[in-house]
Order: sequence, then structure tokens, then C-alpha cells
Amino acid sequence: MIYLDNAATSYPKPDKVLEEMLRCMKYYCANPGRGSHKMSLESGRAILNARQIISSFFNIKNPMNIVFTKNATEAINIAITGVLKPGDHVVTTCMEHNSVIRPLKLMEKANNVEVSIIKGNEFGEIDAEDIKKAIKKNTKLIVSTLSSNVNGIIMPVKEIGTIAHNKGILYLIDGSQGAGSFKIDVNELNVDMLAFPGHKGLLGPQGTGGLYIREGIKVCPIMTGGTGSNSESFAQPEIYPDVHESGTLNTPGIVGLACGIEFINSVGIEEINKQKHKLIKKIYEGIIQLKNVNVYSRVEKTKNSGIVAFNFNGILSSEISYIFDKVYNIACRSGLHCSPLSHETLKTIKTGAVRISVGFFNTEKEIEILLNSIREISENINKCLFK
Amino acid sequence: MIYLDNAATSYPKPDKVLEEMLRCMKYYCANPGRGSHKMSLESGRAILNARQIISSFFNIKNPMNIVFTKNATEAINIAITGVLKPGDHVVTTCMEHNSVIRPLKLMEKANNVEVSIIKGNEFGEIDAEDIKKAIKKNTKLIVSTLSSNVNGIIMPVKEIGTIAHNKGILYLIDGSQGAGSFKIDVNELNVDMLAFPGHKGLLGPQGTGGLYIREGIKVCPIMTGGTGSNSESFAQPEIYPDVHESGTLNTPGIVGLACGIEFINSVGIEEINKQKHKLIKKIYEGIIQLKNVNVYSRVEKTKNSGIVAFNFNGILSSEISYIFDKVYNIACRSGLHCSPLSHETLKTIKTGAVRISVGFFNTEKEIEILLNSIREISENINKCLFK
Repeated sequence: MIYLDNAATSYPKPDKVLEEMLRCMKYYCANPGRGSHKMSLESGRAILNARQIISSFFNIKNPMNIVFTKNATEAINIAITGVLKPGDHVVTTCMEHNSVIRPLKLMEKANNVEVSIIKGNEFGEIDAEDIKKAIKKNTKLIVSTLSSNVNGIIMPVKEIGTIAHNKGILYLIDGSQGAGSFKIDVNELNVDMLAFPGHKGLLGPQGTGGLYIREGIKVCPIMTGGTGSNSESFAQPEIYPDVHESGTLNTPGIVGLACGIEFINSVGIEEINKQKHKLIKKIYEGIIQLKNVNVYSRVEKTKNSGIVAFNFNGILSSEISYIFDKVYNIACRSGLHCSPLSHETLKTIKTGAVRISVGFFNTEKEIEILLNSIREISENINKCLFK
Repeated sequence: MIYLDNAATSYPKPDKVLEEMLRCMKYYCANPGRGSHKMSLESGRAILNARQIISSFFNIKNPMNIVFTKNATEAINIAITGVLKPGDHVVTTCMEHNSVIRPLKLMEKANNVEVSIIKGNEFGEIDAEDIKKAIKKNTKLIVSTLSSNVNGIIMPVKEIGTIAHNKGILYLIDGSQGAGSFKIDVNELNVDMLAFPGHKGLLGPQGTGGLYIREGIKVCPIMTGGTGSNSESFAQPEIYPDVHESGTLNTPGIVGLACGIEFINSVGIEEINKQKHKLIKKIYEGIIQLKNVNVYSRVEKTKNSGIVAFNFNGILSSEISYIFDKVYNIACRSGLHCSPLSHETLKTIKTGAVRISVGFFNTEKEIEILLNSIREISENINKCLFK
């Protein structure tokens, strides 16, 4: 199968990810931070090592400011529900995933939080000035995706970060798309909180993710419980990362995540970005001239994290992804991708969109097969074969 | 190393757990429920298969009433914060883990929830009648552990379930200790919600756990986000299991968990119980006659899920676990085990307790080595070697 669904979860993983997870589970996987014997300490060291690798990767000073979560959604929920209080105002964008929109809309309804959604152009590109204009006296938080999961458009995160910083407003980035594809420096971007999944661009396994919280920001936890610290107290410890890490961590998963990032470091993130962009460009140029195809992504390297979204005129995206799968053995995704707002923006709410998302391991040969299949579909779309 | 810390996390795992996790990650691990291509469907089927295996295991009618979580703590937090409202009263026991006590104490402080903690005897054994007596008009929930994580004592869950059922009160069992060691039938026990970790007695990997919620109980989610369902809506879907499963699931972990339970089924849970009890009995009988040792666990099969907790008179438990590790290469746990309430009950709050927790893979030979080391420590405890 040609796997072009990397925005959902990256596949395959680097060999080392699997090898080290296996080694962890086979030889030392005790409970980290919950004992003082050798195996528990080894698990604890593996977790600390992962924290250090991640903090270097995002230029985070203190590894203890990284909180491990089960996925990016948990990280986003911690950040949003942990800082917003009744009466607060939050600014977000029209390209957010439901992992951002659903918690915000719930707080709007249940906690009297005010939500402003900034519109973008036909690609969902936001003008940071529009975000600035939306800021009010009670604005507590700006949330934006790093890059859209529907069409790959990259947000002006540096400009937004500067605005937030100058206004003393917190800035949360949903790094679900883009983390691992290009350099993210939390200081340079003035980001206060960065949510990231482990299993997408960072090449780790499912069941991992994390949240960076800048030193000094008070974020209430969404769950409490055993942390292996202050055990005598009925109150959740306030120290980091324990405050947000109740219960047993996913040691083998976190070990795998660390290996994923080390793989990126060994190849060089620029190299990964280059390879992905080469493939994106090839797809884009291969389909942009087809008459019955609408493309919703931009091709420029600085405007795309690795996705080409498109539709055949008037055809449901799910029909195309079905044909890709059944006829051509190509895995991609169709539908709304848990982001109805983005589809409102792209004017694809009725059809959804076909989403091709590339990874570092995809080859030009695979893209040629994809393009041949698209051309075949394009030529036959009105014949009975696909009706 | 002789691993006797199975109450923290079980080790080793059955070979099949590792093999199938590896196979999943290597060959088909796309995003389950987030696409319609073959790999996504295969991941989805693997998750469904796990739901079915777990539901058979606990005699749950509808596999969709099982919600996957990252650990038991998340499951307990969903259950507690999801059903309790201001003014509600909850009854719990003196042997609960901080994963139960901390969420309850937080709600007591922040949400005007009333908490009654039922005391037990010197082993923490609860009289179900005391729970009955504590019930008030506003009692909404009873929470009890299935078995203590400190001394293994088994709670009268069937009696408590009957009381809860007759009074129309919800009953949540924390199955962190005991699930996988003896039969749990949610119907027979009249349990409304059962939280379980994947990585302890169920022999799955860390990063897994779940919550069974009886059909018809309204439980508000602790996080919202993309579910792959009702994507066009800004509101979290109310259907199960989606309502509590936002974001990408831990497919390889859940595959491993299913294999852990299948291993238990293949051996027979009675056989596992028998083997663990044989080891517990051997430990108990080996140390109960030592003059300078205090034992806090009961030995009867129906009273112990697989733990022997003890102390040497007047010695900090951490000193003993240190000796076990350094001198004898034995892994166990000391301290408070995230359960100060239990230690108040056992009168070990100052010293903590040494906790030996056995697993199915431990051998009698290992227990003999443990007993020899305990005897040696017992004889030398007052000599300079261990001072």
C-alpha cells in the first residue's frame, strides 16, 4: 500500500523507534518514578532522556516544563481548560481542528468564555493584524494551529506570538501538523504553550504527545491522582511535570517518541522539510493543470507543512478516497478531517476534501503512481466505471 | 533481577503482547476510525477486537460501553468528575489510592461535593454495612478499590454493589489491583463503572487503561476534541465510546492489552490466581514467624490480590527496599505507594511499608531467594552492615 495519510499518523516509523520500544518492554519497563530499584530508575531515566531530547528539539530551557500526554488533544485540553476562567476572551482562527474548537465552544457554553474566530483568505491564511484587532481587555489567550490539518497552510505564528507577547496575552500553538516538519523554537516564536502529538511528524508511536508550558504560567490540571510525589498529601502537587502527569506514564511509547525525534535530528529537519516539499511540489504541479480538479493547498515551502488537499469537481471526496484505496492501493483521507471550520473556509463543507499527506519516507516513485492514478480518475470520472 | 513490583506495573509481559504490538506498528498502524483505507480499517478492527475481548473478560454486554484511556487514573477521573455535581455526597474507603482521593478532595474543595471516608479494621477491611450506614439523601456515588495497592486486601465489592444497586446509587470500582488476578463480572457485582489499567494484572503495556460505563449513565467527558464522528459539529458527540475518546487512540498499546487478556484467558484466570496465591502464601509463611517483622497483609486467597506488605520493626521501608535492590537484586517498592490513607489505616504512615507484589511469571525459586534475603536482613538488621 502507498501510505499518504501521514497527517493522521505517520507511517512507517524509523526502525529504531520499534527496536527501542521493544528493548524497553523486554528488559527494563518498570514504573518510572514509582520505585527506587534499578528497573524503575532505568525507566525513569528513559523518560528524563525523552524530556531532554524534546526540550532541545523545541529549544525549551527546562525539560521539566514538558508534560507528557496521551495525544495532542489531551495537551490542548489541559492548556485551554487550565487557563481560561469565566469572563475570559479567547481569539482563535478559522482553520482550527475540533480538538481546539470543541473545548472552546464547550467553555463558551458552560463557562461564560468568549470566543472570537478570525477568518482567513481562500486558503485559510490568517492576517496576524486581524488577530491583533480582535484583542479586547479581557483577552486571556490566543490559540492557533501551527499548520492546518486540512490543507497544510502554515499560520503566521511568529507574528501572532509577537502580538501576544506585546499585549501580555498567552499564546497556545497546536503543533499537531508541522512539529517535526520544520524548526519550532518556543522562544523565538514567543509561544507560551505548545501542544504536540508524538505519532505524527515526530515519528513516535501512537499513545504519546505532550504539552510545553512556559515557566510561571498557572495551568490547572484536568485530572489528578498518584504522581509518585508528595504522596502524603491529598492535594495534587503543584510541581512540574507532576501536576499534569497523574498515573503511570507510557514508558515504551515515550522511549519510541524520543527515538523518532533523534531520527529527525540525525537526518536534519531541513532535509525532512526539503524532501516533503519536493513531493508536495510534484503532486501540486501534477494536478494543478487538470481541468476537473480544485486544489485547496498552496505549494510554497513556507506555506505548506506537507499536505495537498483537492477535489474533483462536484464529486464527494469520500468517493475518490474509496477509489484510491480499492483500485490503486493508495491510503489517503477524505471527509472533514475533524475540522468543519476549515471546510467552511475552503468552501468544501459539503464535499469534504481529498487529503494527500506526505511523510519523509514517501518516494518520488510513489508520487508518480499517485499522479498516474489521479490522471486516470480525472479522465474516467464521468464514465460509468466510477459512477 | 527478581521483579516483585507487579502492583506498580507487571513484568515481564507475555511474548505475544510484544510480538503483536510490533506487528501492528510494522504493518498496519494507521489512525483507527479516521479514514476508510485498508490500514485505517485494520487499525479500527484491532481496536474493536480489543473492546470485544475486554467486554467478554468483564462480562460487559456492549463493547461500545468500554472507553479506552491512557491509564486507570484517567478512567477514575472521568468517572468521578463526570458524574458528581455540587451538593452531591460520595462514600469511599480508607484504602483508596490518591487517584481516587485526590479528585474527590479537589471536588470537595472546589465543587462543594461532600466526601465520607469509611474506616476499616487493622488490615483495612471494610464492613459493607458501614458503607450502607454512611449513605445519605444526597449520596450519588460510592467509590471503592477492588483491592488495596498497599497490602492487597480485597474489598467486599459484591456486598457494596448490592447496597448501591438497592439504593439507586452509582458504584465505581477502581480495579487497578485485582483486575486480571480474579474474575470480575460487572453484572454480578452490580458495578456501574469499572476503571482498569492495562499494564498491571491485565499484562498489557503501559499507556493503556479503560473505563466501563453502564449503559444509560450520563458521564461528562474531561476532554473534548476530534472523534472522527459528527465532525461537522462543534459539540462533542454523545455516542459511546466517542464521547470519552478524543484524539488518536494508542493502537499498538491497545493491541498489546488485548493480547495480555488473551494470555490470561488461555492460562485461565483461576490458574493465575492459584499461582499468585501459592507464592503469596510462601512469602507470608516465610516471614510471619520472624520476630522483628510486622506483616500488614492477610494470607487468605479471598483476602489478597497478590501483595505482601511488611516492615522490619522501626526501620524505614525505603532502607529495606534499598538493600533488596543493591544487595540482592530484588525489585520491590517501599514508601507510601501514593496511598497515605491506607498507611494511616495500617499505622505505617511514618515508615511506609515494604511491598512485595507477585505476578504470574514469578517462580517459587525466586520466592526462596527473597525469603533467604529477608532472613539474612532479619538477622543482620541490628549490625553495622545495614546501619
